[in-house]
Amino acid sequence: MTDFAKTKSLFHLPPGLVYLDGNSLGPLPKAAVARVGRTMQEEWGDMLITAWNRADWMNQPSRVGDRIGRLIGAPPGSVVMGDTLSIKVYQALASALEINAERNIILSDTGNFPTDLYMAEGLVKSLDKGHELKLCEPGEVESLLSEDVAVLMLTEVDYRSGRLHDMKALTAKAHEMGILTIWDLAHSAGALPVDVGGAEVDFAVGCSYKYLNSGPGGPAFIYVAPRLADQVQPALCGWLGHEEPFAFDLAYRPGAGIERMRVGTPPILQLSALEASLDIWELVDMNDLRARSIELSDLFIELVEVGCPELEMVSPRDGSRRGSQVSFCFEHGYAAMRALIDRGLIGDFRAPDIMRFGITPLYIDADDVRKAAAIIEDVMGNRLWDSAEYFVQSAVT
Amino acid sequence: MTDFAKTKSLFHLPPGLVYLDGNSLGPLPKAAVARVGRTMQEEWGDMLITAWNRADWMNQPSRVGDRIGRLIGAPPGSVVMGDTLSIKVYQALASALEINAERNIILSDTGNFPTDLYMAEGLVKSLDKGHELKLCEPGEVESLLSEDVAVLMLTEVDYRSGRLHDMKALTAKAHEMGILTIWDLAHSAGALPVDVGGAEVDFAVGCSYKYLNSGPGGPAFIYVAPRLADQVQPALCGWLGHEEPFAFDLAYRPGAGIERMRVGTPPILQLSALEASLDIWELVDMNDLRARSIELSDLFIELVEVGCPELEMVSPRDGSRRGSQVSFCFEHGYAAMRALIDRGLIGDFRAPDIMRFGITPLYIDADDVRKAAAIIEDVMGNRLWDSAEYFVQSAVT
Repeated sequence: MTDFAKTKSLFHLPPGLVYLDGNSLGPLPKAAVARVGRTMQEEWGDMLITAWNRADWMNQPSRVGDRIGRLIGAPPGSVVMGDTLSIKVYQALASALEINAERNIILSDTGNFPTDLYMAEGLVKSLDKGHELKLCEPGEVESLLSEDVAVLMLTEVDYRSGRLHDMKALTAKAHEMGILTIWDLAHSAGALPVDVGGAEVDFAVGCSYKYLNSGPGGPAFIYVAPRLADQVQPALCGWLGHEEPFAFDLAYRPGAGIERMRVGTPPILQLSALEASLDIWELVDMNDLRARSIELSDLFIELVEVGCPELEMVSPRDGSRRGSQVSFCFEHGYAAMRALIDRGLIGDFRAPDIMRFGITPLYIDADDVRKAAAIIEDVMGNRLWDSAEYFVQSAVT
Repeated sequence: MTDFAKTKSLFHLPPGLVYLDGNSLGPLPKAAVARVGRTMQEEWGDMLITAWNRADWMNQPSRVGDRIGRLIGAPPGSVVMGDTLSIKVYQALASALEINAERNIILSDTGNFPTDLYMAEGLVKSLDKGHELKLCEPGEVESLLSEDVAVLMLTEVDYRSGRLHDMKALTAKAHEMGILTIWDLAHSAGALPVDVGGAEVDFAVGCSYKYLNSGPGGPAFIYVAPRLADQVQPALCGWLGHEEPFAFDLAYRPGAGIERMRVGTPPILQLSALEASLDIWELVDMNDLRARSIELSDLFIELVEVGCPELEMVSPRDGSRRGSQVSFCFEHGYAAMRALIDRGLIGDFRAPDIMRFGITPLYIDADDVRKAAAIIEDVMGNRLWDSAEYFVQSAVT
């Protein structure tokens, strides 16, 4: 049984604050500062260039990829770290379109995170070969699968509502029609059990700074099903994806399997921070995490709905169809979120009217959920959001 | 006058070591560990998600880009940080090919760093519109400029020999024929005075972990001439290059100017390390740096040539035609470099037979150069490289 009091003790959580935004940026693992400090002082500082070998920086993207693989049901050697999620989406999509070259539709839904759609749009425009990015409502995806579709590209957990797609069923349906699948696990990895191997997913991508707590701008990951990895021709073919980077050939030869999805020099400091977080993940059983996430989310929903009739729940009520976040719709959600933050509850706001709360059992417990619900009740019941200062828009939260 | 004893004192340099590989990975600025630690503890740790606004992480890529702009002659608002050099090459090339859409040749030379060529190869293949990546010898570039050429893509300083292209003259010649230019400044930025504005360069890219000392995997930069920035249509259109990322539109609208070259979430920890290094760069006059670099390089060449007749200098003898490195050709260069490293002199080896030494005045002085030359003389004169252990190849140095 996972000891969540223990995992909570391993994070730095500012006193007096309830942090329900780990679905956007996970908190700092206490060990990360020293870990990154060691990488900087003992590796970069003392070993200098030789750390690429001596500290094995060169293989860090695959080594860390394997640790993430364990959390998403990917076998060793099928996940590699690097770049950002946007870039990894581009790589996956360009590869999939090349494999399914005789088809021209990319099917996605309006619940996909916008950058995935933007990257697809850019690729389609750049290729200029008549591809079409077709968007539907999340509930329509299954009915729109057809033999014209080259690629089904979805985010498993909707970033706004937390609605969970049935990855395994949709992948199976897609495969029946010869469609390749790309799953964005940004809101899944570390949020719930994921099994890309069991679901026979073709490509998966995700970021590490949300539930995986790697810190701001931590690298993304990409999974390519081993059955496809050696036939993928990367569009972004950088030197570290070359079969022999240090041969300095003038022509590209793809590296073996997932290695070819590497592009440039990996961000060693960010990867070190991620490793400190992954040490905590070693203590976690994903089924325990999922049970706890649903239990805490259900408690949160119950308390908020009783206390705040103005808030409309927009997440699925059935925990098994939800990721690890709970969202409410409120016309003045932006102002309300500002008011909550001022009172020690951090969640976030997503335009036009969604108040979003991440439920992350690694460091959030029932006490936190009760405190959060009480703050929300105070802000809503007493209209504390209704103050001019909260209506001035700023960039992020 | 730049105080190079002062700048040297600001780096962590392991005692007993001479480091002539700052052209591959710059050393650790002493202030960087605390700087990154503060970013982790006080921003990520204490502010959590609100640091995107409160610590202004959101604008860090442009803010830092402006500081690098100062070192390469780029006006404020024309440089932005992010991704890796490979990705930035792709962005620049895709943009340039779209502007010069009626032409199909990308001209580069065999002295370009391979990843630039690989990324071009991948783009050409992916676009499948009949573009051709044409490679020539570095000395032939000027004679091959023609009205068929869409883009001239070169690295200013050859990573092997240190040979310097005449960026201003080649750019002017290229422009006479309607050719757009992309300059890779990986071995130029922080190595010598660069003036992308004065040379009227169209696109420039570079990395920050060499002469700019940002640490392993630090982010790349991209410059787009302000006259072009608003007409560039980014092929890699990520959400942070969107006009309003937090509107979460389903369709992409490019941000203003250089902002559209942003893609995904920026690597805040790596950027903080870079900022610590840029504080040191504030103390440096690039003309002083250049004079000192040539003076130290000339001294190094003189001492090595006198002491080691087996080594053949492959860098230009005229300091004004050289970057800030000196390279020698030697059949057993790999083994010789291993032997040097074992004796406290770190340089690097580039296949097939190049021994490469970076001369970086920020932390290398005449004493270091003399020590280095003495170690080389010892290793060469006494054939200390001729040992079985030095012939086992490992990955990087």
